[in-house]
Amino acid sequence: MKKVNIGLLGLGNVGRGVWNIVEENKDELKKRSGYEINISKILVKDIDKQREVDVPKEILTTDFNKILEDDSIDIVVEVIGGIEPSVDYMIRSMKKKKHVVTANKMAIATKGSTLLRTSREEGVMLFYEGSVGGGIPIINGLNENLVANKIEEVIGIINGTTNYILSKMTREKVSFEEALKEAQEKGYAEADPTSDVEAFDPMYKLCILSSLAFDNVVNISYIHREGITNIKPIDIEYARELGYVIKLLGIAKDVDGELELRVHPTMVPANHPLANVNDSFNAVLIKGNAVGELMLYGRGAGELPTGSAVVGDIVSILRNRDNPLYYSKFEEATIPHKIRDINKVQCEYYIRMTVKDKPGVLGEICSIFGKNNVSMLSVIQKGRREECVSLVFITHNTLEGNIRKSMDKVSLSNDVVKVENVIRIENLGLQ
Amino acid sequence: MKKVNIGLLGLGNVGRGVWNIVEENKDELKKRSGYEINISKILVKDIDKQREVDVPKEILTTDFNKILEDDSIDIVVEVIGGIEPSVDYMIRSMKKKKHVVTANKMAIATKGSTLLRTSREEGVMLFYEGSVGGGIPIINGLNENLVANKIEEVIGIINGTTNYILSKMTREKVSFEEALKEAQEKGYAEADPTSDVEAFDPMYKLCILSSLAFDNVVNISYIHREGITNIKPIDIEYARELGYVIKLLGIAKDVDGELELRVHPTMVPANHPLANVNDSFNAVLIKGNAVGELMLYGRGAGELPTGSAVVGDIVSILRNRDNPLYYSKFEEATIPHKIRDINKVQCEYYIRMTVKDKPGVLGEICSIFGKNNVSMLSVIQKGRREECVSLVFITHNTLEGNIRKSMDKVSLSNDVVKVENVIRIENLGLQ
Repeated sequence: MKKVNIGLLGLGNVGRGVWNIVEENKDELKKRSGYEINISKILVKDIDKQREVDVPKEILTTDFNKILEDDSIDIVVEVIGGIEPSVDYMIRSMKKKKHVVTANKMAIATKGSTLLRTSREEGVMLFYEGSVGGGIPIINGLNENLVANKIEEVIGIINGTTNYILSKMTREKVSFEEALKEAQEKGYAEADPTSDVEAFDPMYKLCILSSLAFDNVVNISYIHREGITNIKPIDIEYARELGYVIKLLGIAKDVDGELELRVHPTMVPANHPLANVNDSFNAVLIKGNAVGELMLYGRGAGELPTGSAVVGDIVSILRNRDNPLYYSKFEEATIPHKIRDINKVQCEYYIRMTVKDKPGVLGEICSIFGKNNVSMLSVIQKGRREECVSLVFITHNTLEGNIRKSMDKVSLSNDVVKVENVIRIENLGLQ
Repeated sequence: MKKVNIGLLGLGNVGRGVWNIVEENKDELKKRSGYEINISKILVKDIDKQREVDVPKEILTTDFNKILEDDSIDIVVEVIGGIEPSVDYMIRSMKKKKHVVTANKMAIATKGSTLLRTSREEGVMLFYEGSVGGGIPIINGLNENLVANKIEEVIGIINGTTNYILSKMTREKVSFEEALKEAQEKGYAEADPTSDVEAFDPMYKLCILSSLAFDNVVNISYIHREGITNIKPIDIEYARELGYVIKLLGIAKDVDGELELRVHPTMVPANHPLANVNDSFNAVLIKGNAVGELMLYGRGAGELPTGSAVVGDIVSILRNRDNPLYYSKFEEATIPHKIRDINKVQCEYYIRMTVKDKPGVLGEICSIFGKNNVSMLSVIQKGRREECVSLVFITHNTLEGNIRKSMDKVSLSNDVVKVENVIRIENLGLQ
């Protein structure tokens, strides 16, 4: 039996998962890859730290060079996360002719072109299935299985933390703050939750997915991003009444050759499969011109699901090591697209505002909307609090630019206390 | 630009899809595979037949040898279906060092070992993503993406025709016969619907999926098979009342090292994602010891979705042609399993029977169940018709053997007019 030595960079959540899968599924992995997979060195910050995994101390090192200079190591698995030193470690590993597997969304989203170019130049493979959607095989799906398609849309719930929070707010009618607190207690959210709740994490992931789906190199700056901190229980309640559920979606669409790229809270029809993806599950809906609509659903994070993707990549490398496999996508924009201005997005909108309860206010607001070509599908007036009243509008399909112009004008009115929330509605339907 | 010539066997539904995708997505395919894909010969039965696709007549042939002996053809795509002559054509093509792509579930399910052994012996590739689940990348999922997992369960809606019929019966409360008639009118069901409604088609597919999932060679004779012809609107109505939906499921489980393999109508909880897979959509739920639960959902048939899988396989061959890629699975049983006797299946059961409406009948039946260790979760008595009454039982989790013994005894009772239906209940839950 041939043997392959692996250098593991990082022994956090995902690192533990990789170690445990390689141990637990040793026999299957031998049969399927033809190799005995041996994690021979692990880079950690602190060798003496107590760990929840039974790893022999003698293979731990705090010195990356010990792994880099070890010629018996053929594959480096990077599960440290963040951009530096991870990117530097990966590039140096590839220059030493080591294949690389990573689960690092930030590194791939921001340095993907450089990393993949290095891999081709050095004749080694770089795989990153674990970087998006945990154990869901979405990267491979776009790189291989759906390669016969022109992809038209990729829409997904690609952040488990915010999905957990929104699911909890929807089911238990608690506030964002309460739901976040519980997510933190359960370990679903970090002490500093910014990356998740302000939607940076799904922005990186959407950057990777859209680059692959549209044969492009998407820069994170192209993506319109809004988090979920402004979602109130009352918005979720209105959504329910109107037949919607609020989800944080990553949306990438090819609209007449322009890419629409956005991550934001979205109302989706309550009977759509995405609406029923709850808690920390992820799901990605892909629309291709041949395959039609396809949805992949599963655990978007966690040591074992992400470990499943990472170890799957290791086996792919072993199977292709005599003839490295590259994907031309992502390395450079083979089919350049324009990026669609956010003002050109077209959808229905939910708008909630607090206004003074006096005659003529509704008429004034409606006239502002009308002048900006925004027409209304429905208006709900509910709940009185002193002299103010809550107004909810659902617009017909309209341009975001028209909504923004309307909101600017509406905000100036003395009768409008506050525009509380504007949420886009995606009337997704399976064909 | 390098060019590859393809010989296409068959120009039916899937053949048309393959032709159209290769035409429509020509540019993308060039960029992604590095080849101009050229379908240079097509085997048909009748050259002069009117076709719904614009194919130049001069590339049609009725003689397989014209394709076999053409050394400029590197890849043969078999989309004729059935076992012979398809299997013979594939084996002869491989012996001429041509790679093969097929969407033929019968051929792979019954002759998969021979076909895949030939491929390895001849040093050519044989891919068959289109054979199960149309455009859903389930074969690749099991062969590649989930390779790091011990698979515990594969459960799926893998026949679009019966799912269309059951969805229609559920939504519109029509009979099986009416729903079948409409399915036939819409082209979803064949004039002779046996293969679908008697569950032969999903049996072949489950055979392939379970072979891949459990590193085994599953023979179709191992699979317990029941069709949907006995499902009545009243069963669907009772299911609804009890919180279930009836679906035709293919179920493969590794239970303590034994394989449980069955295709039959099943009650699934109404809030489970599989319950909401309607019409001709397919979905497969996979449970692996690393990835947890994963669901793939999409179009399970149709010229473009299945064509998407076939053309995806062509690109895989082009990317790996210098170093053919094989999968050790399926060719021989690397991890042999025992097949679990159907009497050892454990689940809850729905049992509907017509009995005489007189005192003591319920007691008699319950005592028979009791003697066979079957205990009841609930009993519903409803609807009178002359002197007979309909009785519905839901059992606690129990052995199929106990149910069968009970039913044999119950049938002998003079007070039992007929055991109308026995339907297994799978209390699927996403973890």
